[in-house]
Amino acid sequence: MGGATVKDLQSTLERFSSGDRRALARIITLVENRAPEVPHLMRAVYPKCGHARIFGITGPPGAGKSTLTDKIIGRLREQGRRVGVVAVDPSSPFSGGAILGDRVRMQGHFLDEGVFIRSLSTRGRHGGLARATREVVRLLDALGFDDVLVETVGVGQTELDVMRLAQTTVVVLVPEAGDTIQVMKAGLLEIADVFIVNKADRDGARRLKNELEVMLQLRSEGSWQVPVLLTQGTDGTGVPEVIDALEAHQRARAAQAPPDASEARIQEWYEILRDELSLRLDRAVDGKTLGATADRLRRGETDPYSAALETLSDPVALAAALGGDEEGSR
Amino acid sequence: MGGATVKDLQSTLERFSSGDRRALARIITLVENRAPEVPHLMRAVYPKCGHARIFGITGPPGAGKSTLTDKIIGRLREQGRRVGVVAVDPSSPFSGGAILGDRVRMQGHFLDEGVFIRSLSTRGRHGGLARATREVVRLLDALGFDDVLVETVGVGQTELDVMRLAQTTVVVLVPEAGDTIQVMKAGLLEIADVFIVNKADRDGARRLKNELEVMLQLRSEGSWQVPVLLTQGTDGTGVPEVIDALEAHQRARAAQAPPDASEARIQEWYEILRDELSLRLDRAVDGKTLGATADRLRRGETDPYSAALETLSDPVALAAALGGDEEGSR
Repeated sequence: MGGATVKDLQSTLERFSSGDRRALARIITLVENRAPEVPHLMRAVYPKCGHARIFGITGPPGAGKSTLTDKIIGRLREQGRRVGVVAVDPSSPFSGGAILGDRVRMQGHFLDEGVFIRSLSTRGRHGGLARATREVVRLLDALGFDDVLVETVGVGQTELDVMRLAQTTVVVLVPEAGDTIQVMKAGLLEIADVFIVNKADRDGARRLKNELEVMLQLRSEGSWQVPVLLTQGTDGTGVPEVIDALEAHQRARAAQAPPDASEARIQEWYEILRDELSLRLDRAVDGKTLGATADRLRRGETDPYSAALETLSDPVALAAALGGDEEGSR
Repeated sequence: MGGATVKDLQSTLERFSSGDRRALARIITLVENRAPEVPHLMRAVYPKCGHARIFGITGPPGAGKSTLTDKIIGRLREQGRRVGVVAVDPSSPFSGGAILGDRVRMQGHFLDEGVFIRSLSTRGRHGGLARATREVVRLLDALGFDDVLVETVGVGQTELDVMRLAQTTVVVLVPEAGDTIQVMKAGLLEIADVFIVNKADRDGARRLKNELEVMLQLRSEGSWQVPVLLTQGTDGTGVPEVIDALEAHQRARAAQAPPDASEARIQEWYEILRDELSLRLDRAVDGKTLGATADRLRRGETDPYSAALETLSDPVALAAALGGDEEGSR
């Protein structure tokens, strides 16, 4: 692992730049599976990032986010922009079952070379979906996509974590999404830069818009006034206004003093370390370094808490166990 | 921290045994906040566990789980059993907003000394809700509760993780929960020991029951035949049959060869280690051991990936960072 493979990955990335889409798909699979070479690759990719606009699209299941995303992609393509889409599904399966159908619908852009769509969904004991999403966004950014859209399926904690990486966050609601108290409870009022009331032909759309505007006025702060837009994703009504709002927010963002990126960098470092240590712990448990303790647990000679306290009380052994394959990998 | 405090905690636990309920509430808050002394306490508690029956109650939001849980508690109390309830809410706020109301409803048992109800909900960067839930269940078990009910608000990945600790898992559905495809997508067919179709007076209840039974027959394996019961949580219809099914499943479980607990022990050890490492890493990032790297990141002199690879490749620095406060704590 390590050096050589990272070089391979980089040449794969170059192949993508010259039109090989499957090369990118393969690399994203590595990111999703959290292959050990990924941090090395990301270090190489990191300096090339920072050019793409990153939009987040979130909201409760059934709000019509994918249909709307589809229309937004269409408008951005008309402007000649290359668009990457990351659809994040943290496996909340009662979300309405729209995932498959919606993904298929977005594939209307499948044959368009200027659009790259990828779903990310992680089950399993590692988690790390927010990190994987950020890494895929960075890859798309580094590869020269002008806009990256991150769409989530629902509005749970994982989705809110994912939204932190967006520069402009769009929250999509529908009249039947429930009253505005729900919006507040979900923390959506805090993260929204643009509100959309979709399926605006239905009863209650204007009322929801008014309620949102009242709430937004109550907590108005800063220079950006969060707009509440009415749309119909199915026929594209209101989508040009959405594009205008996205651009306006990006301009407002650029006009402000640049946000302090230092805490974001530290948070990202922390998350990379945490995820890597989990992975290495996993390998250590299965492997030689912590295998003896695992065997004693297996035979019932100790309990999980005693074993954990014992493992943790020897930081040198622990660090050796978690040293991973760094040393031999350059 | 460490020794002395753990002794305090143990005496607090003893006070609880003699009727001081707030003592237990305080300890659970420590578990929820993942205080450093918790692993020590859990090690002391661990040998006293294994007597309680542990029931999981899950299903999509709005299925009436809390009302049903309330009725189940009532029946168990009639049998003279002491009941602990852990209501787990991984902050998926679009779940229908029933949480507050339902918790209040369950408080019908609030003045009953034989019932202890606690909600667990964790936001923040650590996660670890499945671990916290398991620790609270163990505490209740060790304190002599006969039955522990773990109820979740929805059916996302976190909830499924939480359900793994139940001996008998009840999945509650309602006719309008959507078709049975959703049940399969959610992985509920795999985890259910008992299915309940609640709000059985509504249209489609019998159809859902039939569909579930067909699916269950298709994948029938092992000796336990998963029953599908019709209930009305609001008036208690069908609840005695639920209790019968819970008891039948517990008997079937006891009659089988005991499940291999060794992998569960290893998984628990792994989770404790992983969570502790995250906590220690967190403190190290804020503190001296990794503070220098954090400062370089803050000043933009390095990027998160380079910094992470650097930290991970230095076993001495890593050992210092992961050393926590174990050494001085005995």
